[in-house]
Amino acid sequence: MHAYRTHTCGALRAADTGQTVRLSGWVHRKRDHGGLIFIDLRDHYGLTQLVLSPGTPGFAVVEHLRAESVIRVDGEVVARSAETVNPNLPTGEVEVKVAAVTVLSEASELPLPVFGEPDYPEDIRLKNRHLDLRRETLHKNIVLRSKVIQSIRNRMIGQGFLEFQTPILTASSPEGARDFLVPSRLHPTKFYALPQAPQQFKQLLMVSGFDRYFQIAPCFRDEDLRADRSLEFYQLDVEMSFVTQEDVFAAIEPVMHGVFEEFADGKPVTPYPFPRIPYREAISKYGSDKPDLRNPLVMQDVSDHFRGGGFGLFARILEDAKNAVWAIPAPKGGSRAFCDRMNSWAQGEGQPGLGYIFWSEDQGGWGGPIAKNLGAEKTDAVMGQLGLGQGDAAFFVAGDPKVFYKFAGSARTKVGTDLKLVDENRFEFVWIVDFPMFEWNEDEKRVDFSHNPFSMPQGELEALNTKDPLDILAYQYDIVCNGYELCSGAIRNHLPEIMVKAFEIAGYGPEVVEEQFGGMLNAFRHGAPPHGGLAPGIDRIVMLLANQTAIREVIAFPLNQQGQDLMMNAPSEVTDRQLKELHIRTAPPIKAS
Amino acid sequence: MHAYRTHTCGALRAADTGQTVRLSGWVHRKRDHGGLIFIDLRDHYGLTQLVLSPGTPGFAVVEHLRAESVIRVDGEVVARSAETVNPNLPTGEVEVKVAAVTVLSEASELPLPVFGEPDYPEDIRLKNRHLDLRRETLHKNIVLRSKVIQSIRNRMIGQGFLEFQTPILTASSPEGARDFLVPSRLHPTKFYALPQAPQQFKQLLMVSGFDRYFQIAPCFRDEDLRADRSLEFYQLDVEMSFVTQEDVFAAIEPVMHGVFEEFADGKPVTPYPFPRIPYREAISKYGSDKPDLRNPLVMQDVSDHFRGGGFGLFARILEDAKNAVWAIPAPKGGSRAFCDRMNSWAQGEGQPGLGYIFWSEDQGGWGGPIAKNLGAEKTDAVMGQLGLGQGDAAFFVAGDPKVFYKFAGSARTKVGTDLKLVDENRFEFVWIVDFPMFEWNEDEKRVDFSHNPFSMPQGELEALNTKDPLDILAYQYDIVCNGYELCSGAIRNHLPEIMVKAFEIAGYGPEVVEEQFGGMLNAFRHGAPPHGGLAPGIDRIVMLLANQTAIREVIAFPLNQQGQDLMMNAPSEVTDRQLKELHIRTAPPIKAS
Repeated sequence: MHAYRTHTCGALRAADTGQTVRLSGWVHRKRDHGGLIFIDLRDHYGLTQLVLSPGTPGFAVVEHLRAESVIRVDGEVVARSAETVNPNLPTGEVEVKVAAVTVLSEASELPLPVFGEPDYPEDIRLKNRHLDLRRETLHKNIVLRSKVIQSIRNRMIGQGFLEFQTPILTASSPEGARDFLVPSRLHPTKFYALPQAPQQFKQLLMVSGFDRYFQIAPCFRDEDLRADRSLEFYQLDVEMSFVTQEDVFAAIEPVMHGVFEEFADGKPVTPYPFPRIPYREAISKYGSDKPDLRNPLVMQDVSDHFRGGGFGLFARILEDAKNAVWAIPAPKGGSRAFCDRMNSWAQGEGQPGLGYIFWSEDQGGWGGPIAKNLGAEKTDAVMGQLGLGQGDAAFFVAGDPKVFYKFAGSARTKVGTDLKLVDENRFEFVWIVDFPMFEWNEDEKRVDFSHNPFSMPQGELEALNTKDPLDILAYQYDIVCNGYELCSGAIRNHLPEIMVKAFEIAGYGPEVVEEQFGGMLNAFRHGAPPHGGLAPGIDRIVMLLANQTAIREVIAFPLNQQGQDLMMNAPSEVTDRQLKELHIRTAPPIKAS
Repeated sequence: MHAYRTHTCGALRAADTGQTVRLSGWVHRKRDHGGLIFIDLRDHYGLTQLVLSPGTPGFAVVEHLRAESVIRVDGEVVARSAETVNPNLPTGEVEVKVAAVTVLSEASELPLPVFGEPDYPEDIRLKNRHLDLRRETLHKNIVLRSKVIQSIRNRMIGQGFLEFQTPILTASSPEGARDFLVPSRLHPTKFYALPQAPQQFKQLLMVSGFDRYFQIAPCFRDEDLRADRSLEFYQLDVEMSFVTQEDVFAAIEPVMHGVFEEFADGKPVTPYPFPRIPYREAISKYGSDKPDLRNPLVMQDVSDHFRGGGFGLFARILEDAKNAVWAIPAPKGGSRAFCDRMNSWAQGEGQPGLGYIFWSEDQGGWGGPIAKNLGAEKTDAVMGQLGLGQGDAAFFVAGDPKVFYKFAGSARTKVGTDLKLVDENRFEFVWIVDFPMFEWNEDEKRVDFSHNPFSMPQGELEALNTKDPLDILAYQYDIVCNGYELCSGAIRNHLPEIMVKAFEIAGYGPEVVEEQFGGMLNAFRHGAPPHGGLAPGIDRIVMLLANQTAIREVIAFPLNQQGQDLMMNAPSEVTDRQLKELHIRTAPPIKAS
């Protein structure tokens, strides 16, 4: 007989009745019942009920054993009586009548209970992650993560992609977020950096003649932590050669759709091709480049109705040509109470208030201060444009859309959520396309790259030479799901002269490009294919599929919000010898006394 | 028509004749033939021959185009005449008669030619890795690597393993090799470390109730580089719960055998179960714990034949009980010339010489100085024990086996290689088992752990309490293939009291264990399953399968021997602002003037 088990704790069925078996696992729960001890024995695969009678050798030991101790039992599989069958448990038709018990590892008092998963502070959970991970929900999440990643891999390989590893000890990158640095022992005063993403390497793989690359790639950013962002995270890094934007979409849509459908637990997933919404349209319709399309509300520009009179405040605002009035429809939101609540919410958000027009179910027409001033005809026209009527309302935001669009987007989310218009039980995908290549950096009063400086501008060199930089779009795109940005990507700029020109527009001379991206520029000069790709965030995908709102719930050993591993004690002090070998000294910040 | 291609460069066949196609790729080779230009157009998938006649639009451009430029062509697929068919090329039955050419990326002068793969210094290859990777051999190696890893993954998953990611930003580990450190910005004067291996995390996963874990895991060791060792490398990290050593072997053998057989290109692979050789037997038979079993030579202890006279030197050596005489058989090595060469080789290795007995094909019996002194009867007895006769030889090493075993092993290798006894065209696997738990540290005059302090000693606590530490074996094992250590592994010590005792024997008090391995010890106190695993090195596996002797040949972007990335310029200097944010200063070594 095997030293530890003939079956796992999830294996036994009615058909096994009468067999002599050996099981090993954790004491999940222990109950005393009329002199008998019942134990739910747990392992990775399931639970099996054990029964010990006072005559069983080891009964006394088990009586005093704490939950989460690890035991091995030998015994006979017996059928449970009809009234004690547990239909919720795959092994629920049987129990094991124990003949012998061996304690493999005795648990001392537990800082965190496993059975029942009672709420516990996160620092205790993270410090005792080995117990936390035994809890059903987290255990399932981590298994889900593994299966999701494997599914992604198989789907990518099925589409002809090859996975390659790119370096983790690499060079500090001048753009993007803050790098983690690694002092070099062999090269005093020099540092490696951990990759924020394998951006340059994946492009170099294309220039090296590989055609379809992917990698489940670890990435590192030394930025402040949030619920959906960690210092270390994984992305499905993808790059393809000889492709247009549509080729990239066509390659990735079946993967994203397929993996979501596989693990969505029956929730509907947007069929592909996913909708494509240009960046500017997303901003004007949803007030966000990460619109949650489960929320059906679409904002509209209603400036024309307010121009030149009626409601004086808006009319005056519209005298400035850059300004506009946007409307957020609120179907079935037609009550003064709801409109007032929205107005208070807006004030809480730092706004002067939120204008509205509403028509209660029990009133005869449109009401509210704006309707009064605007007059019936214009009010009807506005609300008609929005497709609204009795029982409905609309909210209005006026000013410079560049300034107010984010707030308008939040108001849209708030209205949709409060009116329960958001269908939580679906996954809504959308491509946001046509991001601007450049943006105005108000702080530094200059044109800057909007996103990735390596993207190909639409219209290529001619556009850079002839158009207003702020009007130039890039072949740059995001995948958004349920309001989360799952990835961004782009068709890359593979031509050195366009790269130099693009950097010139952003205020960098050719010598800067050469110094900071010399490796890649050099590669582009030796024959580079047109190429593009993207990089969906793995942790966020799993978070959405596990129905969680924090990525720490889908990572086996996450750092806490302060970037610490409480179990392994990282970061920690190191020895002087280590520092000396690395040719560095610590320079603690000077504290005010 | 697609913007770049209707077919890849490996796709066209005779059946496509007459089709209008579009191809994109690199100009692999260009030849001028009677006014026509022939181009081998290359992409990831293959080569296709293009033909341009002087009338083709773009002919003049192509005439002056350098190799490795990227072009797009439109044209017609035409059958090659019988005498110009290239049977070595999948596309060799056709060529494309070009009607239009677009240059997608013009190559400037190349620092490294691609076509023909002429030998070039490694620093030029690494600095221009994007060109090096286009070369057929390296390109194939990197694709092989990808396929090997995928095959390993599928085989592991097929055996019920789940892949989990463990942290890369983690704690500095006091044992093992030198850590790479990462200064923490949020926690001044503290450091993360990159994992030398996910050893503690994989054990914690078992304690967390996951049953069969694997990971293609990046590992980092700040050690001096060798041909088969890099600063950053990948291992197939494996751990299993409720297992004995034989369970681990049974799980991994089909994976290793299967992946080698899949990619061995017809070379035979040891069938499983692989042979198991105890450590001490490996040392005495092969002079190494990494024996290359393709070499059929087995050493023997022949001390008895030399004891008490005959050959005085050996007899005197044998007066010390710790000493012995080992014989290396050399079948068909029976010539004075060969024996003399071996003797000179040994002197080159810093030995006084290498004693031998030989019997040339054309002589009447055993010869050489040892035979003369030992006398015919004893010589016959020695050589008889070795199974040798006319035409054969044997070499002898005498002294303390602890001191000479490595040299004896080298001599065995040398004899086997020089006599062409090593079958290069096979993969010979062997488990080395029963490693000693402790060893004598001569420098520090104390008992130390031989390998992993987390291994379970055979005999558990009782052995630790009662046996001479140097006699205690561990459940610790290696896989060796063709003389390369592919992995080590162990059944772990999951019981805190045994761990504390083992460390006590190695001279560490319980407070040291608590301080350095507190996280794991703590976990073991909350119910830990018996568990074990191993971690085969991915880079070495691919290196063996690709028939290479340097792992840089199977890594897309390796560091050079000095730990530098010559293309991306890593490690490099960083800004003062970066150092300040990380609360460190550099402390360059002081140079002697």
